[in-house]
Amino acid sequence: MTLGTLVLLRHGESEWNAKNLFTGWVDVDLTAKGEAEARRGGELLREQGLLPDVVHTSVLRRAIRTANLALDAADRHWIAVHRSWRLNERHYGALQGKNKKQTLEEFGEEQFMLWRRSYDTPPPAIDDNDEWSQVGDPRYATLPPELMPRTECLKDVLGRTLPYWYDAIVPDLLAGRTVLVAAHGNSLRAVVKHLDGISDEAIAKLNIPTGIPLRYDLDASLRPVTPGGTYLDPEAAKEAAAAVANQGR
Amino acid sequence: MTLGTLVLLRHGESEWNAKNLFTGWVDVDLTAKGEAEARRGGELLREQGLLPDVVHTSVLRRAIRTANLALDAADRHWIAVHRSWRLNERHYGALQGKNKKQTLEEFGEEQFMLWRRSYDTPPPAIDDNDEWSQVGDPRYATLPPELMPRTECLKDVLGRTLPYWYDAIVPDLLAGRTVLVAAHGNSLRAVVKHLDGISDEAIAKLNIPTGIPLRYDLDASLRPVTPGGTYLDPEAAKEAAAAVANQGR
Repeated sequence: MTLGTLVLLRHGESEWNAKNLFTGWVDVDLTAKGEAEARRGGELLREQGLLPDVVHTSVLRRAIRTANLALDAADRHWIAVHRSWRLNERHYGALQGKNKKQTLEEFGEEQFMLWRRSYDTPPPAIDDNDEWSQVGDPRYATLPPELMPRTECLKDVLGRTLPYWYDAIVPDLLAGRTVLVAAHGNSLRAVVKHLDGISDEAIAKLNIPTGIPLRYDLDASLRPVTPGGTYLDPEAAKEAAAAVANQGR
Repeated sequence: MTLGTLVLLRHGESEWNAKNLFTGWVDVDLTAKGEAEARRGGELLREQGLLPDVVHTSVLRRAIRTANLALDAADRHWIAVHRSWRLNERHYGALQGKNKKQTLEEFGEEQFMLWRRSYDTPPPAIDDNDEWSQVGDPRYATLPPELMPRTECLKDVLGRTLPYWYDAIVPDLLAGRTVLVAAHGNSLRAVVKHLDGISDEAIAKLNIPTGIPLRYDLDASLRPVTPGGTYLDPEAAKEAAAAVANQGR
């Protein structure tokens, strides 16, 4: 059996990345730099002949627009599209809308890194009346209340992303398709943790750079042929990952 | 039973509209004016609270980008997406890539209007080696050869659009959804001909303006409550329809 190819693409710079705010489920747009990153991602796909047959995105604008811009640049704007809240960024709870630098100063390095990088410690839950709560957002109207997060740790993200991986993405791979997943830092870290069997401790240090397609060829048991996959622009990926690790400093 | 609401949206000005060329299945982009039309269409949806739950597009860039821009403007970028070649513009055969004014001068008013507006006379078929043929385009790779058009009249468009209407759009309407169809002058004329029961003769005079959402509320037998539907900006629709009728002059 020949499996399809998985391509992960993290959205480019958003308005709140640029302002150094925790974003989570807040639906901010890309910056002009983020748009350029998305187009460059699409050009890498086209240059290397890695042409998606189907795309899966979150329901957040920055991932959707990244997919649209990248696919337009790769001349694959016409492929099948699927969206799910299960590919959303981690819900950042009460930190949504807060400045990262101020949060670091207010709560200190240890607490800050625990919220940012610990596998199973979520930030405090967001209040339903908070201006950055998503309760009442029509895109989640069909989501049963018990599934609607008020905060998430990476473990929570993995728990809600995996059903979509198995039910929606794996069938496309089994059908031999080239599958683009356009999503977010933490939903993609969850997928990569699962694929590469990364430990709860080691995943803290894994950063996925924005706008650089990450290719995974999978064997018959859906394990990566090359652990960690292959970035289409490895040099840029190395530099960008280092920059992400320094966010909030 | 409460049926959903149908919203038809013709893409805004394309690069070849601007150059007065027959386009058909050639995959040209929107102009800046066409992008603005698409955004304005989305603003009309938002202003009038007509918020799509699902969008159907052709596989051509000008309709796909129109949908993306309109939905982004209406804050409905996250809805479900479906695409089909069955919503494509009419295949203009050997006229694809030809200047409308030159074609009018070369073949005369009668032949020109027959190709543009007769219900059942297609232009000459395009040669598979013509630079504007779509044979070999990967987006039609799964289309059986006998379904791949080399030219089409409006009757042909109706024949290939109706199965998609019945199989993909009607079920969304029966589920009570607000359904946006972002497509082309002739695939939308085909839908409207069917919905309003317009005769083969009368359809020749029907022009659908670009970028102005056309709303249809349907009764239980899927017939329009208001024949002809309702444009969200009726004044602009009237002016634009007159302008379309004068194309090629």
